[in-house]
Amino acid sequence: MVHNALAGQPACAYFPLFAGLVVFLQTVFFAIMPDDASSLTHLNPEGGVRMVDVGSKPGSARTATAAGRVRLGKEAFHAVVSGTADKGNVLCTAQVAGIQAAKRTAGLIPLCHIVALAGIEVTFDLCEEDFSIEVQASAKAVGQTGVEMEALTAVSVACLTVYDMCKAISKDILITDIRLLTKAGGESGAYKRSPKANPA
Amino acid sequence: MVHNALAGQPACAYFPLFAGLVVFLQTVFFAIMPDDASSLTHLNPEGGVRMVDVGSKPGSARTATAAGRVRLGKEAFHAVVSGTADKGNVLCTAQVAGIQAAKRTAGLIPLCHIVALAGIEVTFDLCEEDFSIEVQASAKAVGQTGVEMEALTAVSVACLTVYDMCKAISKDILITDIRLLTKAGGESGAYKRSPKANPA
Amino acid sequence: MVHNALAGQPACAYFPLFAGLVVFLQTVFFAIMPDDASSLTHLNPEGGVRMVDVGSKPGSARTATAAGRVRLGKEAFHAVVSGTADKGNVLCTAQVAGIQAAKRTAGLIPLCHIVALAGIEVTFDLCEEDFSIEVQASAKAVGQTGVEMEALTAVSVACLTVYDMCKAISKDILITDIRLLTKAGGESGAYKRSPKANPA
Amino acid sequence: MVHNALAGQPACAYFPLFAGLVVFLQTVFFAIMPDDASSLTHLNPEGGVRMVDVGSKPGSARTATAAGRVRLGKEAFHAVVSGTADKGNVLCTAQVAGIQAAKRTAGLIPLCHIVALAGIEVTFDLCEEDFSIEVQASAKAVGQTGVEMEALTAVSVACLTVYDMCKAISKDILITDIRLLTKAGGESGAYKRSPKANPA
Amino acid sequence: MVHNALAGQPACAYFPLFAGLVVFLQTVFFAIMPDDASSLTHLNPEGGVRMVDVGSKPGSARTATAAGRVRLGKEAFHAVVSGTADKGNVLCTAQVAGIQAAKRTAGLIPLCHIVALAGIEVTFDLCEEDFSIEVQASAKAVGQTGVEMEALTAVSVACLTVYDMCKAISKDILITDIRLLTKAGGESGAYKRSPKANPA
Amino acid sequence: MVHNALAGQPACAYFPLFAGLVVFLQTVFFAIMPDDASSLTHLNPEGGVRMVDVGSKPGSARTATAAGRVRLGKEAFHAVVSGTADKGNVLCTAQVAGIQAAKRTAGLIPLCHIVALAGIEVTFDLCEEDFSIEVQASAKAVGQTGVEMEALTAVSVACLTVYDMCKAISKDILITDIRLLTKAGGESGAYKRSPKANPA
Repeated sequence: MVHNALAGQPACAYFPLFAGLVVFLQTVFFAIMPDDASSLTHLNPEGGVRMVDVGSKPGSARTATAAGRVRLGKEAFHAVVSGTADKGNVLCTAQVAGIQAAKRTAGLIPLCHIVALAGIEVTFDLCEEDFSIEVQASAKAVGQTGVEMEALTAVSVACLTVYDMCKAISKDILITDIRLLTKAGGESGAYKRSPKANPA
Repeated sequence: MVHNALAGQPACAYFPLFAGLVVFLQTVFFAIMPDDASSLTHLNPEGGVRMVDVGSKPGSARTATAAGRVRLGKEAFHAVVSGTADKGNVLCTAQVAGIQAAKRTAGLIPLCHIVALAGIEVTFDLCEEDFSIEVQASAKAVGQTGVEMEALTAVSVACLTVYDMCKAISKDILITDIRLLTKAGGESGAYKRSPKANPA
Repeated sequence: MVHNALAGQPACAYFPLFAGLVVFLQTVFFAIMPDDASSLTHLNPEGGVRMVDVGSKPGSARTATAAGRVRLGKEAFHAVVSGTADKGNVLCTAQVAGIQAAKRTAGLIPLCHIVALAGIEVTFDLCEEDFSIEVQASAKAVGQTGVEMEALTAVSVACLTVYDMCKAISKDILITDIRLLTKAGGESGAYKRSPKANPA
Repeated sequence: MVHNALAGQPACAYFPLFAGLVVFLQTVFFAIMPDDASSLTHLNPEGGVRMVDVGSKPGSARTATAAGRVRLGKEAFHAVVSGTADKGNVLCTAQVAGIQAAKRTAGLIPLCHIVALAGIEVTFDLCEEDFSIEVQASAKAVGQTGVEMEALTAVSVACLTVYDMCKAISKDILITDIRLLTKAGGESGAYKRSPKANPA
Repeated sequence: MVHNALAGQPACAYFPLFAGLVVFLQTVFFAIMPDDASSLTHLNPEGGVRMVDVGSKPGSARTATAAGRVRLGKEAFHAVVSGTADKGNVLCTAQVAGIQAAKRTAGLIPLCHIVALAGIEVTFDLCEEDFSIEVQASAKAVGQTGVEMEALTAVSVACLTVYDMCKAISKDILITDIRLLTKAGGESGAYKRSPKANPA
Repeated sequence: MVHNALAGQPACAYFPLFAGLVVFLQTVFFAIMPDDASSLTHLNPEGGVRMVDVGSKPGSARTATAAGRVRLGKEAFHAVVSGTADKGNVLCTAQVAGIQAAKRTAGLIPLCHIVALAGIEVTFDLCEEDFSIEVQASAKAVGQTGVEMEALTAVSVACLTVYDMCKAISKDILITDIRLLTKAGGESGAYKRSPKANPA
């Protein structure tokens, strides 16, 4: 098929062709000619998207903490603090939304494994000086995969929920600095975000 | 009923009132200035969280564009660019994840209305200078509510998907600057993010 | 098919017919008057469960209000009132859960239509006398189907959420009197629950 | 923090205030004045809603049985029995709906853990004398959390499904007496509902 | 009702009738007259649908591979290969859709257990000769239930996604030969599809 | 892999071009005429997957009918017919599963629009001759997009449900001939499957 597709021209003959070729390999290399036996033996799982097989990994206790920040601006910040936001109790709603989202992570992030979270907590820190809310989520599970995506998803959805409940006041709200703070358990070992990481 | 219960009596006079008072505090105390007794007399069901009734709003064409940025760092950035990320084709997967998330916005953001999106697009811009990917999403619908949350949710989940597919390479990845760029349609009229908005 | 299969032959004459007969019983026997052999000739797809076609019904404004009651008992009631329930803010969480459930009604109740709710509200009334919480939900939409199931689902899930958050204190909690209070819009016209309805 | 909030009065001065105060702390302690730095260090996980961490609990076999009742009234009851309800096979549909809902419990009840049910059964008992259907659900799992919410959710959604399929006949249908009957496994030990529980 | 249904003939008079009777009991035994006490005593779990209890089964490593084929026709096939299908990158999208669907199997197939997949892969084989795509999915998990439904669901949804993305080109597309290829683990032991199976 | 593809020229010969090039490949190469170098300069959002914008299309009544076949083999077929399948009432369960799946189509098929179905029906035809069940689904909606995917999804999931409930009896079951039968409404006009379509 490669040969048909390339209509008898040498690979990389000139640019557009090379382009088509690379993509071809990237997204459909599985279709490599049956008669191209050798390539079959190199079939490389990286070729297409997949949910990495963790079946052989031992289960272990996993924890991850992530954070993010919602920059509300003065008016929206005070609406959250004083509870006058149009839609009601912002922080409680964001907390519930973040917790629910953490449980749905595998449904949202295509290649995440289903994880039965042992616990998930979402907390907030109101920062008067810059009218922002720091959102933090901690996830725990015992299993074969880490839980950083669960913590990051909880933070992201909690931030979006704050945005939604304040957007009638300001559309300039900014969600920023969504990042992993710490991670423990699993083969890759512990992680603690260093000040030298991407500047948050 | 709380309203009746409170009619013309001193707060906390006797027990039934106490019950009314507590429920008031529980579901709507945000609406009170701690020192504003009179607000007790405005007690209304809107005090708790609610999905705002849009039934009386006219339907109109709505569009919203949102953006966000994933700062990958050099190694992860090149893995995405060269397609050697552990889990496969990062951008196509993130695109699909963002589109799917946009359709699930009302399930993720508690007070969002169900919106039958007319269209949703997620695009990427690779920024070699700082090894980041700018993610942009545009949502369209005809209805009574805006679609900014759909666009912001698509951006957030697309960013998380990029993170997930690159986290084996780097845990320092940062998701940042999730923001509304433009909005059109509806009573509140058009919005275009100004340079003076929260600095992205 | 059964109709053809049965064309002019005695019931149960031979095997193929037996098959037709049984499938008939399996999927549509409800449609038969037990003593009405002729109904065999009216076999129609309505025999099995289906989502009723509302395509020809005009859209109209619909509202529905439903209620239910959680009998907590003294200790759990005071935990909710005083906010010392193990899992945190019970009423706000139940409110969010009820709202989210209302939006998922069509996913939970097999034959319900997808309804784009214009609004949904969940409120609570604490009843000190019998240590119970009355939960009420009001749903609104413009469409071809009523929204009573959305209101009833919101009430049911809000009640279950209260139960969940108090079950560490008491397992004797009872959820009761889930019922439709009012309904408006649509061909069947307005409904207001009468005192003569099933005693709540 | 308490003292700041109370503006110079001793906590618990008298009960209503204390109650209101606790609620206040419960639902908005996050809003504490930033300048009260010390209080930030006391942030108490019970302050907001959370999914309780069960990571340290041993796994064990869990079972729970719950029940509820749908009071249909004569006409709707006979429609279910004779299978002439407008939407078709009521009991089979309600059974499937209840089973599916049990598997979705963690998605519906915000602070429930994801449980991989080992089994779930929904059964019905038709009560001719009062034209009601008693719905019962039994859930089983091996894990760190009980399965009573799964059983109660199955019962509730099965009851709502019966309601939905009969509501064209009667809107006076009442769903009542949703309760836990038995529970086994886990640290809190076995539970069997006593006749002295909230009267069903 | 049994007697009415049998129109005055002895039960099991001859086979077809008996079959009908069984079905009758199967789908509506709940409707049996309360006064028909004896039949109540024969109620067996098969009577209604249920999620089979696997609590007593030992956990073991499970794998399953399933396949299916999308017959696109010449024009649509070339659109997929050359990437000119209206909606974009067909195979990557179908891969993601299949993976996501596998994780949602228990939500789609009523009596499937929730399975925490250890891995799922969806691959494609383009068949130029008949303008078809062979879709294959391999699922892995450690648990008490097999994963063939996860593999089959991944294949089915990947095929539907290919259909969706090509339907603007041809509505004659056919999805066919969805089948289990191999299965390993569990009490029922290994399965390998034989050439003598239903002809694919 | 890409590295191989680039064989003969140094990967990253110079970076900006390479980066732009790959992104181009990853997200939009489909949009290029192979000989259209200039397209490199206008990265076009249509390049990646997207949910086609239907906002400008007029709403109209849409119907679609799809079908599929489950070849059960003799033993499983008779288990369905006689209702002795291990998991219970197969056809009613498959009917409910198909209806529920139709409502979830947009969540399963990434680029499908959310459609508020006006009606969906799933019916069965038992074919004794070859021990197969023909599954048919008809979907209706008023909107801007067709409903063929809803009908095809209902058929596919109903077939998978039959498979699931019979797999304890036979693993050789085959799901085949999933196809669109008719379609009406919308700009593309009516479709009726012709005998000359891909042979079913």
